Amino acid sequence: MADHSAPPACKYFNVTYPLPFVAHVEINRPDKMNAFKEEYVRISSFLDICLSTVLTLDRMWHELPPLFTHLSTSPSTRAIILSGAGPKAFTTGLDVQEASQNSILGPNPDQSRPAPDGARTATRLRRHVDAFQACISSIERCEKPVVAAIHGWCLGLGVDISVCCDVRICARETRFAVKEVDIGLAADIGTLSRLPKVVRSGSWVKDVCLSARDFGAEEAEKVGFVSWVGKNGGKEEVVKEALRWAEVVAGKSPVAVQGTKEVLNWSWNRSVEDGLRYTSVWNSAMLQSEDTREAVMSGITKKKPRFAKL
Amino acid sequence: MADHSAPPACKYFNVTYPLPFVAHVEINRPDKMNAFKEEYVRISSFLDICLSTVLTLDRMWHELPPLFTHLSTSPSTRAIILSGAGPKAFTTGLDVQEASQNSILGPNPDQSRPAPDGARTATRLRRHVDAFQACISSIERCEKPVVAAIHGWCLGLGVDISVCCDVRICARETRFAVKEVDIGLAADIGTLSRLPKVVRSGSWVKDVCLSARDFGAEEAEKVGFVSWVGKNGGKEEVVKEALRWAEVVAGKSPVAVQGTKEVLNWSWNRSVEDGLRYTSVWNSAMLQSEDTREAVMSGITKKKPRFAKL
Amino acid sequence: MADHSAPPACKYFNVTYPLPFVAHVEINRPDKMNAFKEEYVRISSFLDICLSTVLTLDRMWHELPPLFTHLSTSPSTRAIILSGAGPKAFTTGLDVQEASQNSILGPNPDQSRPAPDGARTATRLRRHVDAFQACISSIERCEKPVVAAIHGWCLGLGVDISVCCDVRICARETRFAVKEVDIGLAADIGTLSRLPKVVRSGSWVKDVCLSARDFGAEEAEKVGFVSWVGKNGGKEEVVKEALRWAEVVAGKSPVAVQGTKEVLNWSWNRSVEDGLRYTSVWNSAMLQSEDTREAVMSGITKKKPRFAKL
Amino acid sequence: MADHSAPPACKYFNVTYPLPFVAHVEINRPDKMNAFKEEYVRISSFLDICLSTVLTLDRMWHELPPLFTHLSTSPSTRAIILSGAGPKAFTTGLDVQEASQNSILGPNPDQSRPAPDGARTATRLRRHVDAFQACISSIERCEKPVVAAIHGWCLGLGVDISVCCDVRICARETRFAVKEVDIGLAADIGTLSRLPKVVRSGSWVKDVCLSARDFGAEEAEKVGFVSWVGKNGGKEEVVKEALRWAEVVAGKSPVAVQGTKEVLNWSWNRSVEDGLRYTSVWNSAMLQSEDTREAVMSGITKKKPRFAKL
Amino acid sequence: MADHSAPPACKYFNVTYPLPFVAHVEINRPDKMNAFKEEYVRISSFLDICLSTVLTLDRMWHELPPLFTHLSTSPSTRAIILSGAGPKAFTTGLDVQEASQNSILGPNPDQSRPAPDGARTATRLRRHVDAFQACISSIERCEKPVVAAIHGWCLGLGVDISVCCDVRICARETRFAVKEVDIGLAADIGTLSRLPKVVRSGSWVKDVCLSARDFGAEEAEKVGFVSWVGKNGGKEEVVKEALRWAEVVAGKSPVAVQGTKEVLNWSWNRSVEDGLRYTSVWNSAMLQSEDTREAVMSGITKKKPRFAKL
Amino acid sequence: MADHSAPPACKYFNVTYPLPFVAHVEINRPDKMNAFKEEYVRISSFLDICLSTVLTLDRMWHELPPLFTHLSTSPSTRAIILSGAGPKAFTTGLDVQEASQNSILGPNPDQSRPAPDGARTATRLRRHVDAFQACISSIERCEKPVVAAIHGWCLGLGVDISVCCDVRICARETRFAVKEVDIGLAADIGTLSRLPKVVRSGSWVKDVCLSARDFGAEEAEKVGFVSWVGKNGGKEEVVKEALRWAEVVAGKSPVAVQGTKEVLNWSWNRSVEDGLRYTSVWNSAMLQSEDTREAVMSGITKKKPRFAKL
Repeated sequence: MADHSAPPACKYFNVTYPLPFVAHVEINRPDKMNAFKEEYVRISSFLDICLSTVLTLDRMWHELPPLFTHLSTSPSTRAIILSGAGPKAFTTGLDVQEASQNSILGPNPDQSRPAPDGARTATRLRRHVDAFQACISSIERCEKPVVAAIHGWCLGLGVDISVCCDVRICARETRFAVKEVDIGLAADIGTLSRLPKVVRSGSWVKDVCLSARDFGAEEAEKVGFVSWVGKNGGKEEVVKEALRWAEVVAGKSPVAVQGTKEVLNWSWNRSVEDGLRYTSVWNSAMLQSEDTREAVMSGITKKKPRFAKL
Repeated sequence: MADHSAPPACKYFNVTYPLPFVAHVEINRPDKMNAFKEEYVRISSFLDICLSTVLTLDRMWHELPPLFTHLSTSPSTRAIILSGAGPKAFTTGLDVQEASQNSILGPNPDQSRPAPDGARTATRLRRHVDAFQACISSIERCEKPVVAAIHGWCLGLGVDISVCCDVRICARETRFAVKEVDIGLAADIGTLSRLPKVVRSGSWVKDVCLSARDFGAEEAEKVGFVSWVGKNGGKEEVVKEALRWAEVVAGKSPVAVQGTKEVLNWSWNRSVEDGLRYTSVWNSAMLQSEDTREAVMSGITKKKPRFAKL
Repeated sequence: MADHSAPPACKYFNVTYPLPFVAHVEINRPDKMNAFKEEYVRISSFLDICLSTVLTLDRMWHELPPLFTHLSTSPSTRAIILSGAGPKAFTTGLDVQEASQNSILGPNPDQSRPAPDGARTATRLRRHVDAFQACISSIERCEKPVVAAIHGWCLGLGVDISVCCDVRICARETRFAVKEVDIGLAADIGTLSRLPKVVRSGSWVKDVCLSARDFGAEEAEKVGFVSWVGKNGGKEEVVKEALRWAEVVAGKSPVAVQGTKEVLNWSWNRSVEDGLRYTSVWNSAMLQSEDTREAVMSGITKKKPRFAKL
Repeated sequence: MADHSAPPACKYFNVTYPLPFVAHVEINRPDKMNAFKEEYVRISSFLDICLSTVLTLDRMWHELPPLFTHLSTSPSTRAIILSGAGPKAFTTGLDVQEASQNSILGPNPDQSRPAPDGARTATRLRRHVDAFQACISSIERCEKPVVAAIHGWCLGLGVDISVCCDVRICARETRFAVKEVDIGLAADIGTLSRLPKVVRSGSWVKDVCLSARDFGAEEAEKVGFVSWVGKNGGKEEVVKEALRWAEVVAGKSPVAVQGTKEVLNWSWNRSVEDGLRYTSVWNSAMLQSEDTREAVMSGITKKKPRFAKL
Repeated sequence: MADHSAPPACKYFNVTYPLPFVAHVEINRPDKMNAFKEEYVRISSFLDICLSTVLTLDRMWHELPPLFTHLSTSPSTRAIILSGAGPKAFTTGLDVQEASQNSILGPNPDQSRPAPDGARTATRLRRHVDAFQACISSIERCEKPVVAAIHGWCLGLGVDISVCCDVRICARETRFAVKEVDIGLAADIGTLSRLPKVVRSGSWVKDVCLSARDFGAEEAEKVGFVSWVGKNGGKEEVVKEALRWAEVVAGKSPVAVQGTKEVLNWSWNRSVEDGLRYTSVWNSAMLQSEDTREAVMSGITKKKPRFAKL
Repeated sequence: MADHSAPPACKYFNVTYPLPFVAHVEINRPDKMNAFKEEYVRISSFLDICLSTVLTLDRMWHELPPLFTHLSTSPSTRAIILSGAGPKAFTTGLDVQEASQNSILGPNPDQSRPAPDGARTATRLRRHVDAFQACISSIERCEKPVVAAIHGWCLGLGVDISVCCDVRICARETRFAVKEVDIGLAADIGTLSRLPKVVRSGSWVKDVCLSARDFGAEEAEKVGFVSWVGKNGGKEEVVKEALRWAEVVAGKSPVAVQGTKEVLNWSWNRSVEDGLRYTSVWNSAMLQSEDTREAVMSGITKKKPRFAKL
C-alpha cells in the first residue's frame, strides 16, 4: 500500500514530518535567499532560448508539481507547512540577476540577427508563462491545507507562491513586495489573479501592485493578507505557530478538513447558489463516513477522536 | 387587504413589532441555548431515517421559510432584527447531542442489517442537505433588510444563519465558531459558500474554517465579519443598537431600501457590467415613484418624509 | 504625432500636468462644492423631460468620457490624480436641489395631464441611467492608474466616482456617504455594483448603503475603502501624497503599469483560472519589450531607468 | 415507507401510471383546449388585483409544484410523460380572454381612480412573475426525466412548459407559437431564457419570438426543437411513442438516469471545466452502487437487470 | 421632439423608410462589391500607421455607431433591414487589396528602420481591434430588431456583421466564407465569439472557421445560420421577404418587441436562473403599459392594434 | 532544435505523417475493436483496487496526454487526424467485460470483508474519474486542430473522445451510442459536459443520453454532431476526406489556424464580451507576424503562401 511512500526527491526543497501527519516543506536555497533559479545550457540567441523552454529541465519550480501532487494524495499527510530555509528570507523570488544573464529576461546577445517573428515569439512566451503558472498552482490544487510560515524577505514570486497557500502567517520583521512592476512586466505567475480574492481592500491591492512598494507584517495583517503575526521571535516563532496550527488541523477528521478546503476553493470563484449545490453534492458522499460518528462521540465522551487515513 | 396580517404561528421563534415597521424575530429555545432541534418519531434504522427526511415535520428550521416569506412581502415590515432569546446564546447551532441519538448523525442502531446502497444513501443525504440549505437561505431571500443582533455563543449553524443576514452586530462577549469541522463534516448549510464573500481576508476565513477555533467580537470586527461591537452592555446593548439601526432604515423609502438590498445581493456574485445593467433595469420601474419626490422635498423642507407601504 | 496633444476643453474639470507624465484632474465647481449639475432648457412636462434625455448637452458628467478617453491613450500620461477644487469638498454629488427644479427628480409640473405610459417612461429612464453610468465608468475604463485624492465632503455621486478609481486616499477630516437611499432611489450610478468588490466587509457595505449614514476617514481606512489617510494637513496633504504616489508609478515601465491595471481589473470579476490565462496571453505580447531589459539593467546598474512612451 | 404514496390531488391535471415506474401527467381542461386558467374573486380595481396576487388560490399552475415535487422524489416514478387531454391541444397557453376580464391583463375598470404608484405596482408585478416562473420551473427541477408528448395547439405558455421538459416529441399536425409578443409582453415565463439553450439556430429563435408566427412539426424537428415527429397518427401515436421511450428509460438504473439528467442540466449553463468537476464529484458517490454491477452483469449474461428503487 | 429626426448623414450607407416604422440600411459601395474601405493619408512606416489609428477618420465602419445608435432610440423605427447595394454582394468584407497598400496589413515599406517595440505595437493593435469590434457591435446593441437580407458574396467582415443581426435570411445563390484564416489572422471582429452561439453544430463551426472554405445558402440553412432562403429570385426576393418580416414585427407592440430582443440577448450568455430573474425585473416595468390591453382587445375585437411610439 | 523530434512511443496508438504537417493518430487495438483497456496487477479487494488507482501504469488512456502534448507544440504538426485501426470500429469504448473482472466496475470479490468507509471510497473514485477526464481532455487542449474520422462502432468512451475533437466526420455505416447509462453510471468522462455545447438540440441530446439508444451517421449529421458523412466508401473514404481537410488546414498560416481554434474554444464557454476582448488581446501579439503579409501577398500574386514553423 502507498501509505508510507516517500515524497519525490527534490534538489531545492526539504520535506520532513516534524509531527504525525504534518509535512514541512522548506524552500531550500538559503545561500541565495531561496531565490528561484532557472539555469540553461549555453545557448546563443534570444530566439533559441524561447524555443527551448519546454525542454529545459533545470528550473527550480519544476519540482513543485510532483511534490505537491504527492502530498495531495499521501495518506500520511493531513496538513502542510511551507517556509524558507535560512535566516533571511521566505524567498526573494525569481533570481533576476541570474535570469538576466541567460534567460528570456536577458539581453539579446546578437543584435545583428533579424528580430524573430512577433507571433512566434509570443507563442513561446505564452507557453512558458502557462507552464510556470501551472507549476505554482500545484500548491493551490493540493487537497491538504497549506500554511505559509513567512519570514524575512517575501518578494515577487514569493507573493505568487504565498497566495496559493490557504493560510499565511508571518514573523514580525517580514517585508513583502509585489515586485514585478519593477522588472518591467505584470506579475504573471498568479498574484494579480489571486490577491484581489484574498485581500478585501481594492485600494490597497492596487497601491502595492502598481507602486511595487514593500510593506511589513503589521500592514499585511491590517489588510488581511496574513492572519497572524509573531511578537518578536523571528523565524522560529512563526514556524512554531505554523506547527501548532497544523497539528490542530491534522487532529481533525481528514474527510472534514479536505472537504472544507475544497468547498471553500470552489465557492470563492462562484455564486452562492453554485457553492451551496456543490456542497450538498460533495457531502452526499462525505457524510457516509465513520468520521462523523467518531467526532460526535468524541465530543460527548471527551476522548480524543481517531480517524482513519485518507 | 393583507396589510396587517399576522405572521405565521411559530413554535420556536418569537415575532414582535417593537417599533413601527420593525419586526423582531427571536430564536426561542433559551433553555437549550437556542440550539436547533430535529426530533423524529421512533425509527429503527439508519436507512429508514434517511428515507423519512422529506416527510418529517418537526425540524425547528422548517419554520423559517414561511416566516421570512411572510416578512418579505408584509407591507407592515421594513426592517427585521434577528436575535436569540435568553442571556446565553444567539444559538449554539444544531443540537448535536440530540441529533446523535435519533438522526442521520447518530450511530447505526442495527449493525446486522446490510449497509445500504451508497448511491441511494447519497441521494437521500443530498436531498436532506438541499432542503436544510433552502430553509436557511429563506433569510437571505427576504426582500427586507435583516440585522443579526448576536450575543453569547454563536456556533455552527449560528454562523450559517448570521451570514444570511445583511448586517451583523454583536455584544462584546460574543464567541463565534465555524464548528462543523469538529463534527466531521464540511459546514454544509452555507457558511463555506457565503463567508468568503462577506469577509475577504482569505487567510482568516481558511484559518477559522479549517481549525474550528472560536473567536471573539473584537477579532470579528477587525476582519469585517461584524460591523459594530457593543461596549460592555451585553445582549441589551446590542439589541438596542439593532433597534436604532432598524428604525433608521424603516424611516427611509421602502422602495429605495429594498431596491438597494436587491441590487447589492445581485451584484455581489456577478461582474460589474452585469451589476450596472441590472441596476438600470431595476430603477427604470422604481424611479416611477412618489417616494423620490417625497424624499427630495423632505430634504429641502426639512420635514420628515412619509412613504406609502410596500 | 499625437504625443503632446492637449486634452479636450472642459468647462467643469481642470486638467494640468504638475509633474512629467502625471495628469491632475480637478472637479471644478467649487462654489457649489463641486456638485454635479444638469441644466435643461425649459420644458413643460415630466414626459417631455424624459424624451429629451439623449439630446441634452449640458450635463456636467458628459465631459468625463472624452476627457478620460483622451488620457487613456495619451502617451504623455502615465498616472492620473482626481481631486475636487476648493477647500470644502471632493464633491457633494448630484446637485439635488437643482435637479428637483428641472429634471427627472423634480415635481410633475402639470398634474392635469394624463400619467405617461409606464413602459415608455421606464424605457426613457433606463436609457438615462445607462448613459449616466457609461459616463462615470469612463474613469474605470481609463488604461492609466487613477488615484482619487479626497477631502471634505464626498457624497452620493462622489462615492460612485471614487469607486471607479484604482486607489483612494483621503484627508483626515473627509466625510463620506452613500446618500442615494435618502433621495428615494437605489444608488444607481455604480456604487452598489462596485463597493462590494473593493471593500469586502459585507456587513459594513450593507450598513452604509442601507442607512445612508456618513462615515469618516478613519472608518474608511479600517474597512479598506481608502488605503491612506492624512495626518491633519487637509486637502494639501492628500494632494501632495497623491502626487508622490503618481510620480512613483509614472517612473515605472508604462507597459508594466498598464498591464498590471488591466490584468487586475479583468481578474477581479472572474475566476482564478480565467485570470491566469488572460495574464499569460497579455504578457505573450508585452514581454516583447525593451522595458523588461531596461528595468533589469537598471536594477543591476542602479541607474534610473528610462522607458519609451506608450 | 412512502413508496406507493399517491400524488397530491389535482383539479387540472390527471396523473396515472400506465406502465411500471412511468407516470403520465395530463393537462386536463380539454373543453378549453387545456388553456391555463386564473380565476379571481370579484375585485374592483387594477391596484387591488395586483395586491391580491400572493393570496389568490385558484391559479391552475399552482398545482404544478406539489405535483412535480412529489414525482421528483417518488420511488415509484422513473420517467414522466406530459401531454394534453382531449383531441385538440397540448395547451393553448394562458386563457387570455378570461384573463382579460378579471386579471392583471384586463382593462382598468375604474379610470377615475388615481394611477397607482409605479414602483409599488412594479413590485407586485415582479412578485407575480417570479411566482409564476417558479411554478413552471418545477417541471425542470424534477429529478426524473420528463418527455412532452405534444399534439394540436401548443401556444404561449405551452412553449414555456415544453422547454422545461427534457425531451419534446410531437404529432405531425402540431402547431406551435411563441405567442406572447402578440399580447404585448415579452414571453415572461421562461421561453426566452430557455429556448436559446435548446435550439441553437439564433436566427430561427429570434424569428419565431419576434414575429410570433406559428410553425409546424416538421419545422420544429428541422431546427431541433423536437426530436421526433409522428407519421400521421395524431395524438395517439405521439403518446404511444412517449410511452415506449419512457419504458426504455424506466428500465435503466435510476441512479444512472437521474445522474445523467442532473449532470446535463448543470453542464448546460456552465463551462466544460465546471461540468467535468461536478460530474466527478457526483459520481464519487453514485458509483458506490449495486446498479453498476447489476448493469454490467446484465450485459454479460443477457438477462434483464433489476434495479432497487430510488 | 426628436420623433421625425433624420438619421445621421452617411457616406457609405443608404438609409430609407420603405414602410412605416421600417428602416432599410444599405451598405453602399456597390462598385467595390460593398467592401469596407479604410483610407489613410500617406504615411511612411508601419509604426506610424499604428500610431495613427485612433486619429484616422475615414474608416467606413466608423459610420455604423452613430447610425445604429440613432436607430436604436428613434421612435420612428421599429424594425431594421440591412442589405448590400448592387447586384453582386452583401459585402466582400474588408477591402484587403486596398488595405495591403496603406494599412496595418500592408508590407513594411522601410526595412532599414528598426523593428518597433513589440509591446508598444501590441498596444496599438489591440486598441485598433477593440475600436473596430465596438463599431460592428453597435448593430447588436441596437434596441430594435435587425434582419440581414443577404445576397451574392458575404465574406469575412460580412459574416462578422451578419452575426450581429438578429435574423439572417438570404438569396439562393449567396456564398459565405469566414475568410480571415486566409489572410493570416484569426477572425477578430466578432465571428469567433458569436458564431458558436447562433449555430448549434460545433463540428460545422470549426470546419468553416479553420478551413475558410465557402458555403452556400442551402448549407447555411441546414445548420441554422440563416432561417430562410429564397427560391430563386435573387436579391429582390430576399429584400422583399425581409420587408414582409419587418412589417409584421413593426406591427406588434414596440414595448413587447424590444423587450423580447433585450431579454433574449441577455439570456443567451447567462444561466437560465439569471435569465428568468432579468425577465421578471424587466417586465415589472414593461407590463405597466397600455400596449398589453391594446393587444388583448385587438385579439378579441379582431381590429388591428395601434401602439404609441417608443 | 526540437523540430523533427519523434512523438513519444505508444503501445496503443499509431502515429504517422501521411502528408507534410499532418499527423495521423490511430487508436490501435483492432482485435478488440479498439476498446480501451485497463489491466491491473492481481489485487484482492475492491478497496485495494481503489487505493491503487494513481499507481497503476497500464491504462490505455494514459498514453494520450504525452502524445497530444507533444503534438500540441511540435512545429512539424499543423493538423491531426484521429481514427480507429481495423475495419470494425473507431472504438467500442471502455472494455467493460475486462473491467468487470478486475477493476472498479467488477464484483466485490470478498463479501465477508466490511464495506469500506463511504467517504474514503468516494475520494478514491473522484480522483480516479478526475484523472481519467484529464487524460481524455488532453485531446481538447491540443493547440492544433483535430479531426475525428469515425467509422464502424463509436460507443461510450468513443463519444467522450470524439467530442474533444474539433471536427467530426464519419463513414455512412457508423453507429454511435452514449452507452454509459446502460452500465449504470452517468457518462463521466466528458460527453455530458461537452455534447450540449456542440449539438444544441436539447431534446435530441437528452434523448440519446437518457435512453442510450444508438444512432447512425445520417441522424448524427442532421443534428450537427458530425459535419460530413461519406457516400458509401466505408473507412477509406472518411480517412481520405479527413486527409483532404487536414491538408487544406495545414496549408494555412499556423498562427491564424491555432489562434482561431484557441479563440473559438475560449468563446464557446463565455460571454460575447469576454470573447471579443480575448480576441483583441490575443491578436495584439499575433498580428505582429510575417504570415499576415505572406497571406495577403499570396492572395494578390496567386502564389501558394509559405509559412514559417510554429
